Amino acid sequence: MSTVADVSERDLIARITAPLRTPAPPWLVVGIGDDAAVVETERNHLEVLTVDAIVEGVHFDRAFTPPDAIGHRALAVNLSDIAAMGAKPRLALLSMALPSSLSLNDFDAITGGFTTLAATHQVRLAGGNLTRTPGPLTISVTLIGVARRRQVLTRSGARAGDELFVTGSVGAARAGLAYLQSLGTHARAPHDPLMEAAIQRYLYPEARVRTGLLVGRSRSANACMDLSDGLTDALMQVTDASGIGATIDAATLPLDAGAEVWCSIQGFDARSEALSGGDDYELLFAVPRRGRRAFHAAVRLAGTPVTRIGVCTPERGVRLEGSAEPLTGAAGFRHFR
Amino acid sequence: MSTVADVSERDLIARITAPLRTPAPPWLVVGIGDDAAVVETERNHLEVLTVDAIVEGVHFDRAFTPPDAIGHRALAVNLSDIAAMGAKPRLALLSMALPSSLSLNDFDAITGGFTTLAATHQVRLAGGNLTRTPGPLTISVTLIGVARRRQVLTRSGARAGDELFVTGSVGAARAGLAYLQSLGTHARAPHDPLMEAAIQRYLYPEARVRTGLLVGRSRSANACMDLSDGLTDALMQVTDASGIGATIDAATLPLDAGAEVWCSIQGFDARSEALSGGDDYELLFAVPRRGRRAFHAAVRLAGTPVTRIGVCTPERGVRLEGSAEPLTGAAGFRHFR
Repeated sequence: MSTVADVSERDLIARITAPLRTPAPPWLVVGIGDDAAVVETERNHLEVLTVDAIVEGVHFDRAFTPPDAIGHRALAVNLSDIAAMGAKPRLALLSMALPSSLSLNDFDAITGGFTTLAATHQVRLAGGNLTRTPGPLTISVTLIGVARRRQVLTRSGARAGDELFVTGSVGAARAGLAYLQSLGTHARAPHDPLMEAAIQRYLYPEARVRTGLLVGRSRSANACMDLSDGLTDALMQVTDASGIGATIDAATLPLDAGAEVWCSIQGFDARSEALSGGDDYELLFAVPRRGRRAFHAAVRLAGTPVTRIGVCTPERGVRLEGSAEPLTGAAGFRHFR
Repeated sequence: MSTVADVSERDLIARITAPLRTPAPPWLVVGIGDDAAVVETERNHLEVLTVDAIVEGVHFDRAFTPPDAIGHRALAVNLSDIAAMGAKPRLALLSMALPSSLSLNDFDAITGGFTTLAATHQVRLAGGNLTRTPGPLTISVTLIGVARRRQVLTRSGARAGDELFVTGSVGAARAGLAYLQSLGTHARAPHDPLMEAAIQRYLYPEARVRTGLLVGRSRSANACMDLSDGLTDALMQVTDASGIGATIDAATLPLDAGAEVWCSIQGFDARSEALSGGDDYELLFAVPRRGRRAFHAAVRLAGTPVTRIGVCTPERGVRLEGSAEPLTGAAGFRHFR
């Protein structure tokens, strides 16, 4: 079987770019193939920039993650960051460190997963870097979007009294991952369609790009963050950055149906799992009273269900309703190991 | 000894940002700490974007590369790409995959090497990503610069008759690396000051940022590329992209003095070594007759010596003067292994 070590770097780049049949957008002055890409900026817009990396053995396990899901994930995690800023993604740079043993088929599937998702969101691949590595497959993606100044959603704008909303449902990705880990492969598909849906949610996360953009444009939310590291983490980060706290009504959490099945089989508390589990790539919004109507109009336009899960409080700390103890142990305080 | 696994991700980020005492530039609307960075673009300027990664065991050997040199290199290779476009670097995103065994001292030195070089070039660290890896230390840097449209230097603009100039001297980095490899450590410094200078050239490459910027602004060159993968590679890439060829006078190559010492000790041909060796991060320019005066004024203003090494020809292929055979084996055709 041919591997990436059998061909030249130029050939590998050609395998990525050849399927991109769409003509270059007018703002792309110099694309792939020079020392750097050159782009026209968008008038009266700010630029929103993020980078995120996924590493084999840390963020994905090739035993049960199909190669196209790896490429999909590398972009999706960045799309979610841009969505959480209320911005529109525009261009990406793809930096890959490839083990010599990676087959060309897997390389094509990984980059295909990336470019397919990019095309869905009209994101242009404008440059990148390929290197070999003696270690695990590592993909670092830089994603750049645009937003008008007043459309930008930060973490730090939430105020006491703001209602907290979360998009879609939570817990699916953790349940899907746990199920895949218990199977050890993705080839043996489960018979339960709810579990299968949770697995797909884990493998092919869909960033809420349109939702973030429409809410940003509606200027109805005070703060936003994605749930990449879990709902508890997002609640703690937003409230910490905003200098406030929150009370959450655990009974209202929009639990994923597959996650509920999985947790009932395993004897886990589905609410606790959904609070701590990551990788859902839903969005958390803090919405003031005066923005509520516009917020609901925006998410309806996006076709995205949202659930009110709590309210921001002047007291620091995130508490479940009926509990005096604040939640702990979220990111920022977790160890790096 | 404390390692990166002993502290939180938030602490690691604080260790990078705490020494950055300079206030945020006015164009940085949202810096490190949110889902993404937000920046104001520069009016009437294009944006120039590049990403490059360095991997332990591929691009550097920790046995003889001090940690600050690793961080320096991670940024320098990107600065060189921005310089080769005639642009001014402005902001960087730093994506690091860290082995758990990396000591906090080394982490500080690596990121210090990065931020020190960034400060020298007034490059603002605007965001990034830290992850652990079960594999080698991997650093991927995204660097973004700005340039006016007519200032941009591409690879593809060279024309037959253009003179070819190279900045500084060539061969130092390869000689410095070979010498370090022969010693197996950087602790035993050589007695020969010329060799020591070559080692420093390898360990702490200085991108020709001011030179690229001033030549770009002078609009005197038709094409430019950096020598990251060697002079032969750069000559082949520029002539290929421009649809022309070149004749090089090997006798004129500005050989580094340390490289000459090293090659004479080893019995190597210093010219061949300088043509094929990479990592010099000098710039190659193709300059038309009408641009010659402005080009020399620009490099004089930059304080950078340049040497005329040949001329562009209508016939494809890069030849040494007096040889009918074109040079071969440069990048793009090299295998990925």
